[in-house]
Amino acid sequence: MIAEVLTIGDELLRGEIIDSNKSFLSERLLRIDVHTRFHASVCDSPTDMTDAFLRAACRADVVLVSGGLGPTRDDVTLEVLAETFGRKLKLHEPSLRALEAFFERFGRKMAESNVKQVWLPEGSEALPNPVGTAPGCLFEAEDTLFFCMPGVPRELYQMMDEQVIPRIAARAPEAAGQGSVVRSTMLRTFGIGESILEDELADLARDEHLSLGFRTTFPDNLLRPVARGANEAEAGERLAKLCASIRERLGALVYSEGEDQTMEVVVVGELVERDLRIATAESCTGGLIGAKLTAVPGSSATYQGGVVAYANEAKVAHLGVSPELLEAHGAVSEPVALAMARGARERFRADLAISTTGISGPGGGSDEKPVGLVWVALSTAAEDVAQDFVFPLSREGHRVITTQVALDWIRRHLLGEERAAPRYLLAPRAASQVASQGTGAAS
Amino acid sequence: MIAEVLTIGDELLRGEIIDSNKSFLSERLLRIDVHTRFHASVCDSPTDMTDAFLRAACRADVVLVSGGLGPTRDDVTLEVLAETFGRKLKLHEPSLRALEAFFERFGRKMAESNVKQVWLPEGSEALPNPVGTAPGCLFEAEDTLFFCMPGVPRELYQMMDEQVIPRIAARAPEAAGQGSVVRSTMLRTFGIGESILEDELADLARDEHLSLGFRTTFPDNLLRPVARGANEAEAGERLAKLCASIRERLGALVYSEGEDQTMEVVVVGELVERDLRIATAESCTGGLIGAKLTAVPGSSATYQGGVVAYANEAKVAHLGVSPELLEAHGAVSEPVALAMARGARERFRADLAISTTGISGPGGGSDEKPVGLVWVALSTAAEDVAQDFVFPLSREGHRVITTQVALDWIRRHLLGEERAAPRYLLAPRAASQVASQGTGAAS
Repeated sequence: MIAEVLTIGDELLRGEIIDSNKSFLSERLLRIDVHTRFHASVCDSPTDMTDAFLRAACRADVVLVSGGLGPTRDDVTLEVLAETFGRKLKLHEPSLRALEAFFERFGRKMAESNVKQVWLPEGSEALPNPVGTAPGCLFEAEDTLFFCMPGVPRELYQMMDEQVIPRIAARAPEAAGQGSVVRSTMLRTFGIGESILEDELADLARDEHLSLGFRTTFPDNLLRPVARGANEAEAGERLAKLCASIRERLGALVYSEGEDQTMEVVVVGELVERDLRIATAESCTGGLIGAKLTAVPGSSATYQGGVVAYANEAKVAHLGVSPELLEAHGAVSEPVALAMARGARERFRADLAISTTGISGPGGGSDEKPVGLVWVALSTAAEDVAQDFVFPLSREGHRVITTQVALDWIRRHLLGEERAAPRYLLAPRAASQVASQGTGAAS
Repeated sequence: MIAEVLTIGDELLRGEIIDSNKSFLSERLLRIDVHTRFHASVCDSPTDMTDAFLRAACRADVVLVSGGLGPTRDDVTLEVLAETFGRKLKLHEPSLRALEAFFERFGRKMAESNVKQVWLPEGSEALPNPVGTAPGCLFEAEDTLFFCMPGVPRELYQMMDEQVIPRIAARAPEAAGQGSVVRSTMLRTFGIGESILEDELADLARDEHLSLGFRTTFPDNLLRPVARGANEAEAGERLAKLCASIRERLGALVYSEGEDQTMEVVVVGELVERDLRIATAESCTGGLIGAKLTAVPGSSATYQGGVVAYANEAKVAHLGVSPELLEAHGAVSEPVALAMARGARERFRADLAISTTGISGPGGGSDEKPVGLVWVALSTAAEDVAQDFVFPLSREGHRVITTQVALDWIRRHLLGEERAAPRYLLAPRAASQVASQGTGAAS
């Protein structure tokens, strides 16, 4: 089954927005083992759209079309699609009633222009849109399935998952002639470079039923194991086995499983579960750790607060760091990092506290303390520990990775994992490997 | 002149990365008045690449190709491009020497596989890549210009701006037969909904020499005025006039001009210029304001630090908010917001301080204090002021817009602008307009 994703809209071709719909749609298709072979975008021009539809019908079995379903004059996707294959548009009564109900629910009057949105190509199937005004539709022409969806991501996401994927999944095995079921998951890793990760796992997922995708979302590397089987049970079992092999090799470098299980979600979850209170003392990260923790709903059950101690005076006045210590060692030093963490833990009456102090650049470095140097410290009732890293990254990259290290330290502490395991790649040399991870695009 | 952007790579078609190169390249072309008519992506398959090259040669005058220039076996863009149009690859000596120098500079040994990267199609022109190993090239076939660039964004950006744009700009007027010069800029606005913005400015940029683009990067709305003229002076004058008209209508809603002039850059700049010290007291924003301020290099000259006072205890202990005040009014209230800002200003010995306290959701709301409610307060030596807003957004959206309001208040205070100007759309009703701004994709 060959898939094409076709997005439509002048704003895409002008480069006004980054078209994230394409990667979303392709990623979702891949989960059910359907591979996207072509991506294309055209503007709201009937000529270019017709050309794109005809070409897609020739080269693809399923075409996901996004955009051009709105109420304005520019939105002509369905009109052009119908005309391209010699069909007419027809008012779709159930969609009109759904549209009227939609406006009623929000207490708004429906504009005349909205009615245009429920004229669908003859013989097509409407795809309900519970969160917007434009229904989608499934249109079949020349043995190719065209799924037309809105361009608004929120509406597209829901329609893809609820309406489109089940319809393709129902047809895919038959098209492929194999009757297979696909199961997949996501494993999130932090602290290991992408190329090393690929090398370490290269011999896994080698058989025809398994695949393993890699993706970098700085500073994490994400793994997507996929398994196929004759039925749910077989696919599930193969997936579980693959995940177990990965975890066995990577240990605590895998920090979670699941789409939304970000580092901060994991950390807040573990803290809340243990009924522990946490505080922060941030210098170079400037509030990013607090911002990450408080991004998680319910974090108020564990996060007491913290001090952004950017100036030395603030470290003295609000964290109790002694001026002598600052004078003797400088703000970016082990004793100051430790004193900051200890000060935050005591002053916020927390069970544990994390601190950061470093030189994110671009200025402020010296031979002894280069740009990129950072100290992270963790204070608990039992012990205070600190470690230095050098991350040769941009200012923002440096702050982001330092924040993630701080959160990961908390996680490792709670789970009794080593903070400085051999492959936890954050020593100076290793850091440059992390640094070399771009957005994942090949050169 | 018709342009096409063609990106190449399996990872794109698998949806592993969001392809931001396309919008970058199209936006850059538009600045020199070249319109992109087609976007396409194919995987690293010679068949599909050949097909894409031939089609692009038919329908476009200039084709920007990105990806597939790396050292691995999968990277075959130049090989396939040459073969498609009956040419051969040839070792490009100057690029080989540049590549050797590149590795020498980093003290690394060049791998054999890297040599492959400097074999360019016969008759093509090499485009230097000072920040990576793969040179680009300009290849001409069937009256179409193919600019091949790396897929790594950092390398692509520099090559596009330094090598590609000047070459296209030199040919564009001749192709268009008009000899015109294009000038553009970016105006950043905050506090006004996109649709209202479009309505207010609808009658500007109506003549053939001018255009005005809109783009939403939540929570800002960005304007891109573009002017054409027979020469630099004429284009520049038209652009200045258009910008002046926009500023006249929008006043302080325009907060900066220029690509990198974000709100935090503007605020830090104004503070440093006035030699003022600032502190923060954050509850619902959890450190985001501090993180924004400290993202700006040199912010240590003005930012003293702050307290993330997430728990009520922290508001009492570290900002001096009285327990009675908290008891009487609740944490999300005008008196508490004011006390937080005042406490931060005094305790960090700052000239001014900003505070936030609100209910970002999803839980924690009541009839009297709904989810989305937030108080922002500003304390200065002269006065303490506070205002409430309701932003019916996601938790993250609520925190992001609150952070921007806080920064904008500081800016407005410094510039002597009203904080609650009539069109500063942050009252409950208006906030829902801000809320309705999606990612900018049309339905």
